[in-house]
Amino acid sequence: MTLWDVKKILDENQSFDILVHKNPDGDTLGSGFALCRVLRKMGKRANILSSDGFPPRYAFLYEGYEEDADIGGNTDCVIAVDIADTVLMGHRLEKYTCEGAVDLCIDHHISNKMYAKQTLLDGSAPATALILYRLFKETGIEIDRQTAVCLYTGIATDTGCFKYENTTPEAHVAAAELMDLGIDYADINRRMFDLRTKSRLAVEQLAMSKIEYDFGGRMSMIVVTKQMIDESGADEAEFDGLAALPLNIEGVDIGITVKQRDEGRYKLSVRTNDKLNASEFCKGFGGGGHIRAAGCEICGKLEDVKSSIRAAVKELLESGNE
Amino acid sequence: MTLWDVKKILDENQSFDILVHKNPDGDTLGSGFALCRVLRKMGKRANILSSDGFPPRYAFLYEGYEEDADIGGNTDCVIAVDIADTVLMGHRLEKYTCEGAVDLCIDHHISNKMYAKQTLLDGSAPATALILYRLFKETGIEIDRQTAVCLYTGIATDTGCFKYENTTPEAHVAAAELMDLGIDYADINRRMFDLRTKSRLAVEQLAMSKIEYDFGGRMSMIVVTKQMIDESGADEAEFDGLAALPLNIEGVDIGITVKQRDEGRYKLSVRTNDKLNASEFCKGFGGGGHIRAAGCEICGKLEDVKSSIRAAVKELLESGNE
Repeated sequence: MTLWDVKKILDENQSFDILVHKNPDGDTLGSGFALCRVLRKMGKRANILSSDGFPPRYAFLYEGYEEDADIGGNTDCVIAVDIADTVLMGHRLEKYTCEGAVDLCIDHHISNKMYAKQTLLDGSAPATALILYRLFKETGIEIDRQTAVCLYTGIATDTGCFKYENTTPEAHVAAAELMDLGIDYADINRRMFDLRTKSRLAVEQLAMSKIEYDFGGRMSMIVVTKQMIDESGADEAEFDGLAALPLNIEGVDIGITVKQRDEGRYKLSVRTNDKLNASEFCKGFGGGGHIRAAGCEICGKLEDVKSSIRAAVKELLESGNE
Repeated sequence: MTLWDVKKILDENQSFDILVHKNPDGDTLGSGFALCRVLRKMGKRANILSSDGFPPRYAFLYEGYEEDADIGGNTDCVIAVDIADTVLMGHRLEKYTCEGAVDLCIDHHISNKMYAKQTLLDGSAPATALILYRLFKETGIEIDRQTAVCLYTGIATDTGCFKYENTTPEAHVAAAELMDLGIDYADINRRMFDLRTKSRLAVEQLAMSKIEYDFGGRMSMIVVTKQMIDESGADEAEFDGLAALPLNIEGVDIGITVKQRDEGRYKLSVRTNDKLNASEFCKGFGGGGHIRAAGCEICGKLEDVKSSIRAAVKELLESGNE
């Protein structure tokens, strides 16, 4: 479908439910609040529905947003933004997971399950917010300052502040135009990329203090046990997202984070640089993923799990995979 | 002077010394190697002179560069890039610090001392590499892939990967055009922003493990003593650049790094968010700097130094400076 097909849907309906994915991030929220804002400015009624609420760290995205309590249970149109699969809607949005419940999905995940009646999909776009930016520009929908804040945040967060490979020239050009609308991009970036909570900091400290190197520093491994989590006093969720840390060390070709799930069950997150194939590595343990980022589970005693990992890394380093 | 005045200088001279500043960073090296490359492609002879060599982490900038040993001691033209002041040239470039030794300076530091015969200065540009980008574009000098690598690196490093306030829409547009030349920007960014050496990691671990909070978490302080440095086994220089860490914690309004210089002499690096004035704070101790980043020295026993800091922070938090 074209951008103009989407514009027609916005024009022809009067009330909208906008769905964001569970554990909402900067792109789904930025896209959702941008879309909601332009719809309301078009004189439409719209709400944003999230299984996990709106985390306070994104408060600057929903400044001034209030739920429209009188919109009723039956809106004309349900739009999902940045949701590749109905399983990502989360518990509170279960009623939207049945077939035909979502009228329109706007997304950039190549893995999109095409569950919606219509889908505006571009798997080469680094963020859903960039697709919305195109939509607004192309169809003459005004982007005001607060909408620009939302779109910039979506693009910046999904590209790691324009750092990752998925960043496109178009993303930079969009950022330039959004900055021209007077947004406080430095403040946004500080909130999204620099600020850490005290407890997250403590968790990173703890994890990094346990780092183990092997094979002349080519492998690094962090093991997070249930005991560590309990003793830290931090929430278990704070221990997520550590997977990038072990690879970001000079000389390391494979970085592995091992997190204990239950007694005798360990979840591995494997990251590799361009010399090694993480997906191949994880397939050996019944897992899988991408070439540079993959995962798997290994059961057994921790010492045995670590031995298995080392043996597999040894094989990987020695094989033609290098 | 205009970009075309600079082009004329490049055209009219045959041999060039290009100077970069001491402790060279991504912008001075990116600018230097970009300029050297285009000059050589114009059929000119050019070398890059650095007091501190070319650090290996920037090796991708000088791939294929070899010193022109036959250029002789007397080149036609000396160009300084990204050097605001002759004191920043460093020991090995002392002969260029006398008046009239530098023919042309290309720089973006508003504090430029105007020591060169001619200066192309734009204090609003986030990087010297961006000024060179304008020069090449405007005057029709071809930007090839390797030159694009150099320019992108200069712009990205000086803006913190487009994160900081100094980032401009123009910087994003330039990045977009440079990416179109096929550079591996993700690899550059990983090298510049994500990769850390094992010893740097150990130093950060050590420093962060010593963090102290006060005033309900509004102040954070890291103290690095000579004893800590000695016991760490790391080079003292590894302890530089820690100043941003204490402020990057949620709820902190003033982050202070205290580094022992000699017995009884401590150097403070002070960072504040937009609620407090770091420069005012440091003036109270005979130092100064910018509103959000400033420095000073305090002499005395460590416990007394810390008491003085706390008293001054208390005053700052209570004053109208908030």
